[in-house]
Amino acid sequence: MKCKKCGGTAVINMRQHKLGLCAEHFLEWVPEQTQRFIEKYDMFGRDARILVAVSGGKDSLSLWDILLRLGYQADGLYIGLGIDGGVDYSNESHRMVDQFVARRAAEGQPLNLHAVDVAKLYGATIPETAAISNRGRGKPCSVCGVIKRYIMNRVAYDHGYDVIATGHNLDDEAAVLFGNTLHWQAGYLARQAPVLPADQAGLARKVKPLCRFYEREMAAYALVRGIEYIYDECPYAEGSTSIYYKSVLNKLEEDRPGAKLQFYLQFLEARQAGLFQAAHDAEARELHPCSRCGQPTSAPDTCTFCRMWDRVAEYKAAGKELKPLSIR
Amino acid sequence: MKCKKCGGTAVINMRQHKLGLCAEHFLEWVPEQTQRFIEKYDMFGRDARILVAVSGGKDSLSLWDILLRLGYQADGLYIGLGIDGGVDYSNESHRMVDQFVARRAAEGQPLNLHAVDVAKLYGATIPETAAISNRGRGKPCSVCGVIKRYIMNRVAYDHGYDVIATGHNLDDEAAVLFGNTLHWQAGYLARQAPVLPADQAGLARKVKPLCRFYEREMAAYALVRGIEYIYDECPYAEGSTSIYYKSVLNKLEEDRPGAKLQFYLQFLEARQAGLFQAAHDAEARELHPCSRCGQPTSAPDTCTFCRMWDRVAEYKAAGKELKPLSIR
Repeated sequence: MKCKKCGGTAVINMRQHKLGLCAEHFLEWVPEQTQRFIEKYDMFGRDARILVAVSGGKDSLSLWDILLRLGYQADGLYIGLGIDGGVDYSNESHRMVDQFVARRAAEGQPLNLHAVDVAKLYGATIPETAAISNRGRGKPCSVCGVIKRYIMNRVAYDHGYDVIATGHNLDDEAAVLFGNTLHWQAGYLARQAPVLPADQAGLARKVKPLCRFYEREMAAYALVRGIEYIYDECPYAEGSTSIYYKSVLNKLEEDRPGAKLQFYLQFLEARQAGLFQAAHDAEARELHPCSRCGQPTSAPDTCTFCRMWDRVAEYKAAGKELKPLSIR
Repeated sequence: MKCKKCGGTAVINMRQHKLGLCAEHFLEWVPEQTQRFIEKYDMFGRDARILVAVSGGKDSLSLWDILLRLGYQADGLYIGLGIDGGVDYSNESHRMVDQFVARRAAEGQPLNLHAVDVAKLYGATIPETAAISNRGRGKPCSVCGVIKRYIMNRVAYDHGYDVIATGHNLDDEAAVLFGNTLHWQAGYLARQAPVLPADQAGLARKVKPLCRFYEREMAAYALVRGIEYIYDECPYAEGSTSIYYKSVLNKLEEDRPGAKLQFYLQFLEARQAGLFQAAHDAEARELHPCSRCGQPTSAPDTCTFCRMWDRVAEYKAAGKELKPLSIR
């Protein structure tokens, strides 16, 4: 396989694009494409202050790297979830993020990183909170989602960022889409997009600049670019529906190269053409400030996030010991 | 596994319904369920004159059998497609239909069967027509669909039937749905339903009473009920997308029993709730009579069906020999 641009040895063959590229041209191609997606979906302009949510995984660190290479003002946000799971998951991912920052600093490019430790700030880790939450019992991902979304928004709001960028890749997006489609969840389908607009109640704009890259492309990017990242999946994600859907889509992709991309892009086109407009309008919820923390919520009074920590506080006040949710 | 109704030995275990049934109760359950679907989707009333499209396969022969057992006035329509494919496909399926009718006659239940031979009536078989059709080159299923739909409608119209019933089962419907969803074909999604209403331009009402039965349930019904049917798939269908999608959905079903049924039912619910209404309205086409045959068409002047036979006639007039499309 040869590089389409220079004829050198290709390091990656992207069957869905009928495109092989050498290391040098692949490292050029990825930011070019990212810039194209940023413009196509009108994600943000040249002067935007961007907050990149970095988990220590290949996607988010690559995203940060790409945005910096493209010349954007991009700061990082690491959220320490307090997940051990036998692989010291959170500490290890934090270490990867710190290492990414330290390398750039050593090369004369100091970066801004916000690091929030959930347990230190709010009094319990994600697995501990999930263990006592109605929402979370056996479903830590739901609790984790609420907490991460809250903190991302809070940091963006407090520090005046224009937009939050997350590292969701095509495989992530296609898996979510597949799940929502299998169950025809019109409301969720209506909301799935590369850009979630800001809400004047204080909800920051969110964008997914990598949404059209296959997971393997991002893994290749991190590898070729020498970005070290945490290989482990979150230990709580094992056996999850989203991993299962990814496997189904990978099989489809193997049999019909490009199927995953087409599925996602044709969905976006149908969405653009208004297929989910009615569902979108029906789902539109009035947001208002939480009576406790002031962050936007659709809950009548106190937001889900505050109520989660109320429960943790009650447990502690009752002298009960918090234990992390066990892994299935 | 025991029968849920009588405790006898079950002949089938339907995991998605958590239901095992013995032969006797399964043979009761299938028509009961069919009647339930007929009512739920408002397919037809007690006095309707029904034309059942029978192919000689398990689904359509079982459908005819079930409707007769339920006491409906149901006549059959067999369309001879002229497909050999090395397995004498069309002759063999015709034989199965004739045998079904002969058995009922021997039991004192004479049935009406309309048999249309495409080659005799129009001058060429499906594989011959597909071989010279722009639409059909390499895609005989498309030509076959046009011709079958036309003939079904024509016979229903000429003989004054109220409704055409086809044997599409859940696996068929889910596979079509899956394909349309993977490509987000809003127009096709909008049109997929257990009932296609009649159009005053002369399009007969069409219904799919078996749309909620798994293929294996229909195979079991035919087996237990002693209905002989043709086992072969159409030789031209081999390697088709729809067979591929069925295999993907079967894998899903194996991993998550009920997934296929949920996918289809939740789609119908979303459709009922109006998800595809806009796409449906956008796709709505004014039908008018074909200038040649008088049957309803959306084509500006002559319908696709008539134009297909024009092409056959041109070929013959030019002294060219018709050959069946070869099988991939």
